[in-house]
Amino acid sequence: MRTTYCGLISRQHIGQEVTLCGWVHRRRDHGGVIFIDLRDREGLVQIVCDPARPEPFRVADSVRNEYVLRVTGRVRERPAGTANPNIGSGEVEVLAHAVEVLNPSLPPPFLMDDDSISEQVRLEYRVLDLRRPQMQKNLRLRHRVAMAVRRFLDQHGFIDIETPMLTRSTPEGARDFLVPSRLHAGEFYALPQSPQLFKQLLMMAGFDRYYQIVKCFRDEDLRADRQPEFTQIDVETSFLDVPEITALMESMIRSVFKTVMEIDLPDPFPRLTYDEAMALYGSDKPDLRIPLKLTELTDVMRDVEFKVFRDAAHLADGRVAALCVPGGGELTRKEIDDYTDYVKLFGAKGLAYIKVNAVEKGSEGLQSPILKFLSLQAIQAILQRTGAKDGDLIFFGADRAKVVNESLGALRLKLGHDKNLVEPGWRPLWVVDFPMFEWDDEEKRWTALHHPFTSPAAGHEDLLECDPGRARSKAYDMVLNGWEIGGGSVRIHRQDVQSKVFRALAISPEEAEQKFGFLLRALQYGAPPHGGIAFGLDRIVALMAGADSIRDVIAFPKTQRGQCLLTRAPSPVDEKQLRELHIRVRRPETAKA
Amino acid sequence: MRTTYCGLISRQHIGQEVTLCGWVHRRRDHGGVIFIDLRDREGLVQIVCDPARPEPFRVADSVRNEYVLRVTGRVRERPAGTANPNIGSGEVEVLAHAVEVLNPSLPPPFLMDDDSISEQVRLEYRVLDLRRPQMQKNLRLRHRVAMAVRRFLDQHGFIDIETPMLTRSTPEGARDFLVPSRLHAGEFYALPQSPQLFKQLLMMAGFDRYYQIVKCFRDEDLRADRQPEFTQIDVETSFLDVPEITALMESMIRSVFKTVMEIDLPDPFPRLTYDEAMALYGSDKPDLRIPLKLTELTDVMRDVEFKVFRDAAHLADGRVAALCVPGGGELTRKEIDDYTDYVKLFGAKGLAYIKVNAVEKGSEGLQSPILKFLSLQAIQAILQRTGAKDGDLIFFGADRAKVVNESLGALRLKLGHDKNLVEPGWRPLWVVDFPMFEWDDEEKRWTALHHPFTSPAAGHEDLLECDPGRARSKAYDMVLNGWEIGGGSVRIHRQDVQSKVFRALAISPEEAEQKFGFLLRALQYGAPPHGGIAFGLDRIVALMAGADSIRDVIAFPKTQRGQCLLTRAPSPVDEKQLRELHIRVRRPETAKA
Repeated sequence: MRTTYCGLISRQHIGQEVTLCGWVHRRRDHGGVIFIDLRDREGLVQIVCDPARPEPFRVADSVRNEYVLRVTGRVRERPAGTANPNIGSGEVEVLAHAVEVLNPSLPPPFLMDDDSISEQVRLEYRVLDLRRPQMQKNLRLRHRVAMAVRRFLDQHGFIDIETPMLTRSTPEGARDFLVPSRLHAGEFYALPQSPQLFKQLLMMAGFDRYYQIVKCFRDEDLRADRQPEFTQIDVETSFLDVPEITALMESMIRSVFKTVMEIDLPDPFPRLTYDEAMALYGSDKPDLRIPLKLTELTDVMRDVEFKVFRDAAHLADGRVAALCVPGGGELTRKEIDDYTDYVKLFGAKGLAYIKVNAVEKGSEGLQSPILKFLSLQAIQAILQRTGAKDGDLIFFGADRAKVVNESLGALRLKLGHDKNLVEPGWRPLWVVDFPMFEWDDEEKRWTALHHPFTSPAAGHEDLLECDPGRARSKAYDMVLNGWEIGGGSVRIHRQDVQSKVFRALAISPEEAEQKFGFLLRALQYGAPPHGGIAFGLDRIVALMAGADSIRDVIAFPKTQRGQCLLTRAPSPVDEKQLRELHIRVRRPETAKA
Repeated sequence: MRTTYCGLISRQHIGQEVTLCGWVHRRRDHGGVIFIDLRDREGLVQIVCDPARPEPFRVADSVRNEYVLRVTGRVRERPAGTANPNIGSGEVEVLAHAVEVLNPSLPPPFLMDDDSISEQVRLEYRVLDLRRPQMQKNLRLRHRVAMAVRRFLDQHGFIDIETPMLTRSTPEGARDFLVPSRLHAGEFYALPQSPQLFKQLLMMAGFDRYYQIVKCFRDEDLRADRQPEFTQIDVETSFLDVPEITALMESMIRSVFKTVMEIDLPDPFPRLTYDEAMALYGSDKPDLRIPLKLTELTDVMRDVEFKVFRDAAHLADGRVAALCVPGGGELTRKEIDDYTDYVKLFGAKGLAYIKVNAVEKGSEGLQSPILKFLSLQAIQAILQRTGAKDGDLIFFGADRAKVVNESLGALRLKLGHDKNLVEPGWRPLWVVDFPMFEWDDEEKRWTALHHPFTSPAAGHEDLLECDPGRARSKAYDMVLNGWEIGGGSVRIHRQDVQSKVFRALAISPEEAEQKFGFLLRALQYGAPPHGGIAFGLDRIVALMAGADSIRDVIAFPKTQRGQCLLTRAPSPVDEKQLRELHIRVRRPETAKA
């Protein structure tokens, strides 16, 4: 039907007759001649319809934006001075011999090069929105990323194995999407939150290296940038430990960035322990593009007069830390108040600070309401450890470590963006040596920081029982520019260790058997040492595309309320369908009960 | 943890020290020496543990089948006469210096080289079943097929785009799996039966070439070899018509067979119209490996005395046809009776036949109870058209064409297999020019033979209204060895044509708007001509693997009752979960109401 794509026409076609199919991107009448920018997925080309050829001219005169045309004509150089350097085919144009309308179009609700449309309208008219060059680019980028991943994994002996979508509900972690069974009245499948257990079973089945690019489902409240269905690059290997798995996976990510974007990521990725990340950045997913670090001050605040610092320094889980902002002395009172309000969102009770006017004058050169409550020794430690210079400002956090880390960690990010401190480029890292457990204040029990199948660090098996809070795991996260893009671990392959972890998590043997019996059984029949990782494809592509939201790298996303505005899903269904599935909808008053 | 795979050890490693990880496939004690066949995904290697090295010998002595070991040792040639030609590493063995038990195993319920285990047990112990070399081979084949498909499509400009799993229910065709929404009380998502409408929307969005290897869902009664979730290779292109799409897709299948199995499929594939396929094989998915064809006799039976033939020949939708079986004269009375019972399963009332003893004697050389009711002219036509030879037997079908085709088509297959007439090899073909509609006797209305978005053949638009039964479509099926492995069509891209088809299908404008409003709207904004196809990946891989069932090429399949015997899905769920989803289970007595 055509000889090539519009966007691929170039000088090398000059003199050739071509047939093109595409959409009318723009149509204008200029000096009695009609110019049409014809668009396809590869780009635009200018079609010229001269009144000297009455038939194509007549058709061209009738077309409007987004009509689908088939055009035959000869490629020629554009007249001097009329080249358009913004498009690939800008030096040439096609003089039309024939123009055929393959399909007309109603006037579209927005122009394809309008980038200011509300997301509501974009999602309702998603088909037109997807025609916009930026969306075309994003989804093709996604394809290239997925293909680069597949090629790398295929070359490294990983086997793509599909795991079930209709699986068993294990109410642990996030909420499941359920699917009522017709053949088994009153029973339900669950959509997988991840193929975690299946990939472990595949290792126990001896496949050695598995991967899958796979949809996962979580019925969570869609805060921030989440989707009820999202896509994971899911990987698992046998007989490798943390150093080998992380080395292999970072080389995959390097290969993808190189192949798709011609970007060289560092080799190897830097590596921080969880404790280091928390100490330096107050976060287990630090954005290394921001050149600010927290400074530890707990040890020097134990004896100061300032009660807030002293009390925090004496808490078992307390921390006092500083964040030095270069040039921060210029912050206004208003700005400092705003940052104080900001850290309060994370539980901080206030935001102490010191302005550094003249370092060489010691405490004389500083300016702060809290100065008089600090010892000389503490002030010296602050200046020395932060390396503050004249004109800097030092913020302080003092509270339980969790509050200090979250508030100063968030403040660090906010300051980085507000003050344009974010360095360009890509700053991946590994965060390793995570704690096995965190204490759940509400449920009064330990919960798994990763998941209950994560192996304890070598030698930490006994801590599972005697001091769970100190036990470290073989878990690792890959972080890129402040986003956790992948997380994984070496898994437990010994049934006795798995039982210990269940005990530490207060999961009874009966409950373990009921929920994970198939895993426990498989562990008894020669499970190999194994581990893996899952990457968030949506996030990786959104980062690469510089998209504001993962919705911009998903063809048909849901809104924050879980709706597809295009197809109007979810929707009511026939009573007959519900009957077949042995369920009924609760009446609203019952639902509230 | 290891230097290479067990199955890759060969002569070239002789003299080298290697470290291997794997499972104890077999362990035997021979002349005081312990021999272990160690297995990993690449195959087996023989480990020798000599009592001269007490430590590895002691460990080796304690291991049992399916223990996971790590073995270090030196590769050496096997003593003369002890090579094992059945395994890749059969000329060598590894003399163990160190043997470490990475994980013990309970005695497995079956041996890994036992091919006689019941499917029930295999599915319950799927992890062990998947260790069997045949299952390893099947799933690796599946991976290679998927990868070959992706490479081909990527090279041909197809973009892998993910479509939603949580979508809108359109109760048309098969039954949907439903997913209750938590955020929208009383509303439901449906799992996709195929991404049909989304891929059409992607063409309207200008992506030009799309593909996806994607899970699809149908909540049907699982007769024969179906699964509630199955995998489609889903493809769609713009601006191509039937010849180009079929040419491209058959070259993909050729490329996959060549890449994965080094098999050359014919180029081009033969092509039959639906009418030809029915006339010659009584089936729209003929198995061309069976060299039997139906012979048309309707025209010569109009005036014969034999009422069964004459009546069928006079029916508006009647047919009389013959199936000549070379050497069929040897069939016993019992066998002929059995075949008569067999065709009755397909609605035939009987199975007339003629034994051909001596062709040159004309009707004198024939033997049949119906002979005396046939005219000479009819007998001559039978002999001439079937080309029957001495010793052949000719079966007859006479009824409505549907019954004749189904019964003789099935008889043809059965005879082909019973009489070992199936020729080896791969016989793909296209079946094209399908009818648009078929008449539903129960619902008294036309239904779509493919789906309601299939384009009518050029010039058949008017037949949609005046004579729907005669309208042909731009649909095509790819058939391989009697299996429909792919089906597709050029789609409707003009809203007026789509409306005509909905009218022919007795779908009211209101119903169309409610169910397919988003498609109809998209058709108004410049939809390009487009078409595509969907291949059944499970079937293709099962055919290639020579598997009895698609369950043998799926890692974790469901039973015929939709159950996963490994994880025990589906299962009852917490009342709390149901409450959150605003549903309740109907009590059994209510369900029956």
